[in-house]
Amino acid sequence: MSHFGVAVEYALHVLVQLAHLEDQSPSANALAEFQGVPPAYLAKIMTRLEKAALVKAAEGKGGGYQLAKSPEQISFLAVADAVEGRKKLFECTEVRQRCILFGGKPPKPTGICGIHAVMLAAEQRMREQLSGTTVADIAGPLQLKTPQLPGYVQRWFDSHSASPDSNRKSDGGRKRRSTR
Amino acid sequence: MSHFGVAVEYALHVLVQLAHLEDQSPSANALAEFQGVPPAYLAKIMTRLEKAALVKAAEGKGGGYQLAKSPEQISFLAVADAVEGRKKLFECTEVRQRCILFGGKPPKPTGICGIHAVMLAAEQRMREQLSGTTVADIAGPLQLKTPQLPGYVQRWFDSHSASPDSNRKSDGGRKRRSTR
Repeated sequence: MSHFGVAVEYALHVLVQLAHLEDQSPSANALAEFQGVPPAYLAKIMTRLEKAALVKAAEGKGGGYQLAKSPEQISFLAVADAVEGRKKLFECTEVRQRCILFGGKPPKPTGICGIHAVMLAAEQRMREQLSGTTVADIAGPLQLKTPQLPGYVQRWFDSHSASPDSNRKSDGGRKRRSTR
Repeated sequence: MSHFGVAVEYALHVLVQLAHLEDQSPSANALAEFQGVPPAYLAKIMTRLEKAALVKAAEGKGGGYQLAKSPEQISFLAVADAVEGRKKLFECTEVRQRCILFGGKPPKPTGICGIHAVMLAAEQRMREQLSGTTVADIAGPLQLKTPQLPGYVQRWFDSHSASPDSNRKSDGGRKRRSTR
């Protein structure tokens, strides 16, 4: 099993999506339908992202979600920690304390176990890389690569946010955005 | 759950132990008893380390294990990969291919998903750190910190390797090593 689960993957895709939808507030259901991910699972993920102040619930009728800060301020690390908690690379069970030479009465350890220290350094390298990359680093290049994409995306969400009832429909028959 | 399990922790402790026992070949049972870890589990771990050519079975009566290369040549990364396989930090499920705009017929992706690329870079930083640290980096300082330790350890294993029958006994009554 990988260290980060699909919840982190779904969360990052959703946040990139929200970065492309600056003035829209899609519902969790619409986001799930758009991305082809399980709606109930995504709803839980959105709650965690909201708790971590990475997204916020939009006010008003049919309100969904918006980014709570700019995409430049949302690091991959913050997303992973928000969705899965602060996962450790290595859990030290203090094997050194169990050495038979101690006869069940190990001395108080002086400092961290050397093996644990190496693992913490490796975890630190990984976390530095993830904290140095933001949602904007992904959303920007994607927009440059396929400039028409945000327009398409905005129109799709526009047609799925007329009212709570129309959230799951493929066409709400609503007036389209000027970006069309 | 942490990325690396206790098997990696046990393996690293055993290898540091073996680095301190250059001219001895303790059995898996003796190593398990010494470290206070489950013998059956450690036996499986030793088999994986042997398969990866990090340890080798010693020849002759009561033969146990020796390092298959010098401690300087055994990186933390090699140990982790040997014991748990090449574990990924992130498993990309290609969410981008499921976008509803593709109507179930996504185009052939051009290049790797941007989110996946960030995760691979983070994994690479972690692996670099682990591949740059060896068993010798831990075994050496430990020996300097407690110079008497290797002597104690050697004597304990000496008294637990007289014959396969005495592997689990606390005192084989055997002639002690000159290091005593």
